[in-house]
Amino acid sequence: MTDWGARAADLLDDLACLSEPGAGATRLPFTPEHRAAVELLSDRMRQAGLTVTLDDAGTLVGRLEGPKGRGTLLMGSHQDSVRQGGAYDGIMGVVLPLIALEKLRAEGRATPCSVEVLAFADEEGVRFPTALVGSRALAGTVDPAVLEMTDGDGVTLRAAMTAFGLEPDRIGVLKRDPADVIGYIETHIEQGPVLERAGEALGVVSAICGIERHSIGIVGETGHAGTMPMEGRKDALVAASAIVTEVNRLALASDGLRGTVGSLAIGPNVVNAVPRVARMTAEFRSADDAERRAAGVALHAYAEEVCAGMELSCEVTYQQAAQPCAAELSERLVAAVKRAGGQGLVLPSGATHDASALADLCPVAMLFVRCRDGMSHRPEELATPEDMGRAVEVLADLVMSPG
Amino acid sequence: MTDWGARAADLLDDLACLSEPGAGATRLPFTPEHRAAVELLSDRMRQAGLTVTLDDAGTLVGRLEGPKGRGTLLMGSHQDSVRQGGAYDGIMGVVLPLIALEKLRAEGRATPCSVEVLAFADEEGVRFPTALVGSRALAGTVDPAVLEMTDGDGVTLRAAMTAFGLEPDRIGVLKRDPADVIGYIETHIEQGPVLERAGEALGVVSAICGIERHSIGIVGETGHAGTMPMEGRKDALVAASAIVTEVNRLALASDGLRGTVGSLAIGPNVVNAVPRVARMTAEFRSADDAERRAAGVALHAYAEEVCAGMELSCEVTYQQAAQPCAAELSERLVAAVKRAGGQGLVLPSGATHDASALADLCPVAMLFVRCRDGMSHRPEELATPEDMGRAVEVLADLVMSPG
Repeated sequence: MTDWGARAADLLDDLACLSEPGAGATRLPFTPEHRAAVELLSDRMRQAGLTVTLDDAGTLVGRLEGPKGRGTLLMGSHQDSVRQGGAYDGIMGVVLPLIALEKLRAEGRATPCSVEVLAFADEEGVRFPTALVGSRALAGTVDPAVLEMTDGDGVTLRAAMTAFGLEPDRIGVLKRDPADVIGYIETHIEQGPVLERAGEALGVVSAICGIERHSIGIVGETGHAGTMPMEGRKDALVAASAIVTEVNRLALASDGLRGTVGSLAIGPNVVNAVPRVARMTAEFRSADDAERRAAGVALHAYAEEVCAGMELSCEVTYQQAAQPCAAELSERLVAAVKRAGGQGLVLPSGATHDASALADLCPVAMLFVRCRDGMSHRPEELATPEDMGRAVEVLADLVMSPG
Repeated sequence: MTDWGARAADLLDDLACLSEPGAGATRLPFTPEHRAAVELLSDRMRQAGLTVTLDDAGTLVGRLEGPKGRGTLLMGSHQDSVRQGGAYDGIMGVVLPLIALEKLRAEGRATPCSVEVLAFADEEGVRFPTALVGSRALAGTVDPAVLEMTDGDGVTLRAAMTAFGLEPDRIGVLKRDPADVIGYIETHIEQGPVLERAGEALGVVSAICGIERHSIGIVGETGHAGTMPMEGRKDALVAASAIVTEVNRLALASDGLRGTVGSLAIGPNVVNAVPRVARMTAEFRSADDAERRAAGVALHAYAEEVCAGMELSCEVTYQQAAQPCAAELSERLVAAVKRAGGQGLVLPSGATHDASALADLCPVAMLFVRCRDGMSHRPEELATPEDMGRAVEVLADLVMSPG
């Protein structure tokens, strides 16, 4: 009997080798590594009986034709990695549905609908200052202006896509007919420790968290650390530290809220000078937009208070609403997880995924796979063959009863 | 009638022009700018009737011979500046006693003892990673190993001094006979806002604060800011921020204590990653060594507490005991300030000065002059001619009644 989890692990190992030199996997969009991954996946898709195309957004599409008029179920994720990333983030969400279709084929079972396995070119946004072009193209929401964005070498996205053999100006015609699409299911490593802590291989995503990012600048007054009395100091780092503490406190106090100051720099930044300036970011994420917005408002009020007498600038630099997953599709995914022996644990996704772009087209649902130590974006990232085997079972189950 | 304060301001203006190009004054030791300052000061010293020598540590010595057997009163400070510093820090403490001797000469008054005006080459330690060689030479406490230290261009202190026409190996013979030295009086801008806040032109220093510096390293755990739950995070910046807050709290709670985290850097330092590492400094200064040490001990205990579960390294990288000024000499300085119409305010010096090295030789006292906005080490640094005129009066008064 075939071990489908081990088969997924083998394919993922092969794909991880299609990488720039260096630790871990580095596979950026529209590069020779991307091309090699497209070729390897295309071969495997054809062997599984899929019809393979590369669309003009660079999305590899493997289509299994089902009965006419029964619609199409989309399953996939992104092929690209961060620099020196792992072998699972993204690409596992392409491999597992492909293996699920191999399994169904091996078992001689015909799917009740058409199924497409999708490998999007770019979700991480490492090479270009944009991402999700492939998934947005299917939803018809790509802003053509992104084609003029350049990578670190000054190459535009348009030029990179053209050199890859694509016709970027045809992205507009990739929009799918919502009437034909049953839904989109994305499988992804959790990138967090919740499943591991709960002792569960699989979980179903309730919603993709909304995000807001704040850029905070504080200008106080420097001075000699020895000669400036404590009273009346305008120490930008003391104020910044109070804000770090408050961001953490707000997030701990609110069940579904995550709050992080990821970046902080001060000046003059020498041992014997009172810090004059501090620049920092603060980020809140929550599946509940109201909860997130309330935290942002509380943060600004707190910053005004602790920076009294100093110059303060507080700016919201990014905001993205939460994207709830489709209730019915998610419930069917939960039921399939339970049939495979899991608890059917439901958890939010703190990270953004292609699913958030596809939500503009169709019902979306996400299956999370436990990953070791909650680790992602690093060479050590790991999902076990056993856990992947369970995910293959769940995906095959779902394909056979898509709605 | 001569305005001695204005005369001091004029000479300081001329000296400020002896600077590397750029904003403010940049006059590093053993440079053409240093040479030009030595020449200008030598001329003025000779005009005031002083005998001028440049000793082998690079200290310009202007000596006014007094009655035999009545000893020598030393008065001075350092000629060097920081990069793009001001026109007063250091050099004002050379100019004001010189002007005081000009004043006495103009008034036809003979001093009751010998007086030397000293301009030390290097107190700021900007060019070489050492300082106070001139004042330590008089006390006999120079470690000859410092001569092998190099500046940013790889030039040793020995080579720089030799090129300046000095014989650095003769530093050992510069040691003065304590029996001949009555004391050392250093005049300096306050570098802080205490006199300005009190509305006083002059103050007398009680002690030069002791210093201790801590280097603190925290290694926690990074992770995706969206996917890592708040519970169980090991956020190095959250811990570092608690330490910043505690350093500030400890210093505010203790009357004579100053506490500053001047330097902090975190990694990976990106908006959407939980900070893994934080490296920071913490500095305490106090005229009371026991108070300072207690703060250091409390800091380490607190750091252990907030970094529980993370890797913590806490190291004392620098420690310098407080140096009380000589009681009797300081009291005479206070009395002279009062005779000149001041309150005789007494305050600690948060910064280190040549006086701390001379304390190994003789009684030391320091006269602080109010500076605008407590500012130093910047082109905007200013002591007014009026305040300097008062200081000249006090120094002349003291010279006439040295003990």
